[in-house]
Amino acid sequence: MSLTNRQLCLQCCPKGLIAPGDLQLAGSPVPELQDGQALARVKYLSIDPTMRVWMAVDTYLPAVAIGEVMRAFGFAEVIESRHPDFKKGDRVTGLTGLQDYVIIGDSAKRSFQKLPKIPFLSDTAFLGVLGINGLTAFFGMEIAAPKKGETLVVSAAAGATGSIVGQIGKIHDCRVVGIAGSDEKCAWLTSDLGFDAAINYKDAKWKEKLAAATPNGIDVNFENVGGEIMHAVLNRMNLHGRVVLCGLISGYTNGDPGLASFGQVLVKRLRVQGFIIIDYASRFMEAATQLGQWKMFGKLKDRETIIEGLEKVPDAINMLFTGGNTGKLIVKL
Amino acid sequence: MSLTNRQLCLQCCPKGLIAPGDLQLAGSPVPELQDGQALARVKYLSIDPTMRVWMAVDTYLPAVAIGEVMRAFGFAEVIESRHPDFKKGDRVTGLTGLQDYVIIGDSAKRSFQKLPKIPFLSDTAFLGVLGINGLTAFFGMEIAAPKKGETLVVSAAAGATGSIVGQIGKIHDCRVVGIAGSDEKCAWLTSDLGFDAAINYKDAKWKEKLAAATPNGIDVNFENVGGEIMHAVLNRMNLHGRVVLCGLISGYTNGDPGLASFGQVLVKRLRVQGFIIIDYASRFMEAATQLGQWKMFGKLKDRETIIEGLEKVPDAINMLFTGGNTGKLIVKL
Repeated sequence: MSLTNRQLCLQCCPKGLIAPGDLQLAGSPVPELQDGQALARVKYLSIDPTMRVWMAVDTYLPAVAIGEVMRAFGFAEVIESRHPDFKKGDRVTGLTGLQDYVIIGDSAKRSFQKLPKIPFLSDTAFLGVLGINGLTAFFGMEIAAPKKGETLVVSAAAGATGSIVGQIGKIHDCRVVGIAGSDEKCAWLTSDLGFDAAINYKDAKWKEKLAAATPNGIDVNFENVGGEIMHAVLNRMNLHGRVVLCGLISGYTNGDPGLASFGQVLVKRLRVQGFIIIDYASRFMEAATQLGQWKMFGKLKDRETIIEGLEKVPDAINMLFTGGNTGKLIVKL
Repeated sequence: MSLTNRQLCLQCCPKGLIAPGDLQLAGSPVPELQDGQALARVKYLSIDPTMRVWMAVDTYLPAVAIGEVMRAFGFAEVIESRHPDFKKGDRVTGLTGLQDYVIIGDSAKRSFQKLPKIPFLSDTAFLGVLGINGLTAFFGMEIAAPKKGETLVVSAAAGATGSIVGQIGKIHDCRVVGIAGSDEKCAWLTSDLGFDAAINYKDAKWKEKLAAATPNGIDVNFENVGGEIMHAVLNRMNLHGRVVLCGLISGYTNGDPGLASFGQVLVKRLRVQGFIIIDYASRFMEAATQLGQWKMFGKLKDRETIIEGLEKVPDAINMLFTGGNTGKLIVKL
């Protein structure tokens, strides 16, 4: 067969949001499979803030090189195999990249996980609630070690990770307050997900509302945003509070905003712990099992924003930074 | 008897360094002792960066009110007593304030510790190596939990706390690198205190020298300064490094400088722990015993800068921020 693999390749490192041409669509024939390889059709792409970082700088993974297929996490289905561990029909997740087809077992040594078939879980759940976002929320909340009755504030609360963080907070009987960017998102958090309060940071009086929603101060800050939002949260932290630093979205398109109120860490004797889930790879099964159980018993609800078409990926990534999505953002191919 | 108590009272909150008139010298008669009170003559005042914070804002202690005797830690000797726990000749440390005499057991409920007489310990050691600075270094290094062979970088390394931190690092078999503000201070750290390297941050090439002195990166940052210095150190931290946040001197006279490179905490999965020793009060005896033993066996060396005269206190406090002192800064009355 002669398949064409459409690929989005990094053409130049974006300034700010992704501009037309930063990611360029190209096509190349799918090479013939070698022994030890399998070919998988990418069905869903996970759109994550970290992709914007991968375009710009070496961090926990090297930056994507100019001309390379842009890195992305995705869900794929094996359509042909000469690999001993994969057969046609197997469903997998891994770093598929932004393309229609991915070869498992090629020189890039990408690692793929075979997925179980569980009736109540959609394919896309393996990218969100049981994927990067669920795992991130799970291990981040393990670091936070929330206690019953404590107040947890999570930023980017209506995002794929934040929305799960808050629900795990409720499982731990915390008072959970979310910060999000629209009244609709806030309504979803309180009405559907059981958050105790949600604050729209675009509201002129949002800091007063944050204060009113956290009458006993803040014990745990699960931080996804940084900058001005984190600044306001730190100012309401209690002595000996914990900050779980999961992301700094506010800086991904504009450069590190720093932290203006860093002195609060000293005065309030806070513990700030940065973390990235790749350090927890040996425990992904354990976490996914727990997340799946919570999901099955209705303790974790999720929402997805699904966009169709590989060519829409650049706009989709930008949505993460302009607040366009609620819940997990996915591009369907 | 009719004694006059000279007192330095806070007249207005300084902007930047302390200016003439911010602390005003006043005199008042020492009141007659009541039952349950003792009168002590202040002999030495401990000059600490935190005093500048006490003048400005409520933090872990309320700010000193305008008109009040300025808060300070000091060493005093009981000269008259109607207090059951103190007798004439007892030597004590506590929050004496900037004054010649302090009444123990008055309504201010200041807490004083009686001191043992140990031949090899000078009176002033109870303000430094066995006082605030030794205790701070001890508990901060407990948080750091340094392991043999790790690289520890301490800022304000020639200060009263930093110099002890580095020596405790050597007790733990770490590679210890100090950052200080003059070649003389650096020479003291390496020649007398056993630091592996010391960097003068006023040297134009100090960042390159820091890199050369930390070939395996930095595992532990004991931070006293913040701002630009911390920024440079964070950029050389290893994955999963620990930052013990003890002070942010660079911000005490100019306002919180924030932390420009806060994103490093995320990317490198750092743990940042702010701490203040008042949280460890129940363990001061334990720490002082260990510090005293190290001191006795020659594992902790200290240096003091002693200035005479209550009226010199404002200049002495400013020295902490302009780099004028080496080791413990004390005003003798």
